[in-house]
Amino acid sequence: MAKVFADVGISLDGYIAGPNARPGNPLGDGGPRVHQWMYPTAAFRRMLSLDSGGQTGPDDEVVREVIERTGAHVMGRNMFDEGEVAWPARAPFGKPVFVATHRPRDPWVREGGTTFHFVESATRALELAKNAAGKKDVRVSGGARIIQQLLRAGLIDELSLHVAPVLLGDGTRLFDRNDSNLEQIAALASENVTHVRYRVIK
Amino acid sequence: MAKVFADVGISLDGYIAGPNARPGNPLGDGGPRVHQWMYPTAAFRRMLSLDSGGQTGPDDEVVREVIERTGAHVMGRNMFDEGEVAWPARAPFGKPVFVATHRPRDPWVREGGTTFHFVESATRALELAKNAAGKKDVRVSGGARIIQQLLRAGLIDELSLHVAPVLLGDGTRLFDRNDSNLEQIAALASENVTHVRYRVIK
Repeated sequence: MAKVFADVGISLDGYIAGPNARPGNPLGDGGPRVHQWMYPTAAFRRMLSLDSGGQTGPDDEVVREVIERTGAHVMGRNMFDEGEVAWPARAPFGKPVFVATHRPRDPWVREGGTTFHFVESATRALELAKNAAGKKDVRVSGGARIIQQLLRAGLIDELSLHVAPVLLGDGTRLFDRNDSNLEQIAALASENVTHVRYRVIK
Repeated sequence: MAKVFADVGISLDGYIAGPNARPGNPLGDGGPRVHQWMYPTAAFRRMLSLDSGGQTGPDDEVVREVIERTGAHVMGRNMFDEGEVAWPARAPFGKPVFVATHRPRDPWVREGGTTFHFVESATRALELAKNAAGKKDVRVSGGARIIQQLLRAGLIDELSLHVAPVLLGDGTRLFDRNDSNLEQIAALASENVTHVRYRVIK
């Protein structure tokens, strides 16, 4: 059955973005260091149509697997607002993205398969994303608040984290008093990052 | 050259102990779940002289390596106070332990090679531990505050963390606004825990 997985990069001290995240500084101060491992991978560059090159290896395979399993995205309003002015015309999703927001808006079609749909709640966004994903999985792409909310509601099946060797010291924490029970299902490390996956036990 | 390494188990959300840690509840509510992976290993059980059995495999090897490389320990006062009433007569260190505390006290000799020495500051504890360790490494065994303090002072060469598939939700965080630069030097996962090691770049 199709799964709902949250997939995000985090710093070793648990932040998904540095301090002062806002439109214009979407990952916060120092935040891009958390995703540094991903930018040169072939799969990521291919999604952005940057070129046909890029690095292969374990990090690239992880990115490729995440892209391949994803049939639709769920996103919080903050992540959308911060990303809207930062993403290129060919936004790095390539699939329908359901944005939970109280501000209604027509769908926004971007190049390369990304269409943003705006819906009134996180649970409704998840419902629509499941329909759109078909047999593929739904990726909850962030930010932190919507992941915390859906995790607390028991609606996330799996956490897929990419732990970067970075201490940000401050910023937006991935977890906020979440106390789910987890089972570690996979872990893989390259020189630059440790990828870990957990099943949420319900 | 001998290294100074901090070695601790942490929850996925970054806590080294659950809430309400105190003497009598040294790891805090839920805290033992963070170290669950370690208790059955052969190396840990051997150190406590529990028996000659226990599990072998990657987790056991990690515990064995940590024990073998350690020539002396540095410890904060809170960890000592909470552990003092909990550790067995054969305390699980097997080496001199230098406890940073403002309360002077005679050395406390335990079975199996553990002797606690009480000294007035973290930096003095580290200095004495380096002398005692000889060519072996000094392990900063916790708690969080002394690790944060020594990391901030640039006195820790390496972080060795054991990330358990546990969300505690609250408790004592390992990091507190630390912003050291790190290089990932090793990562190894078993079914139960992910071991990661980082060099602190100075």
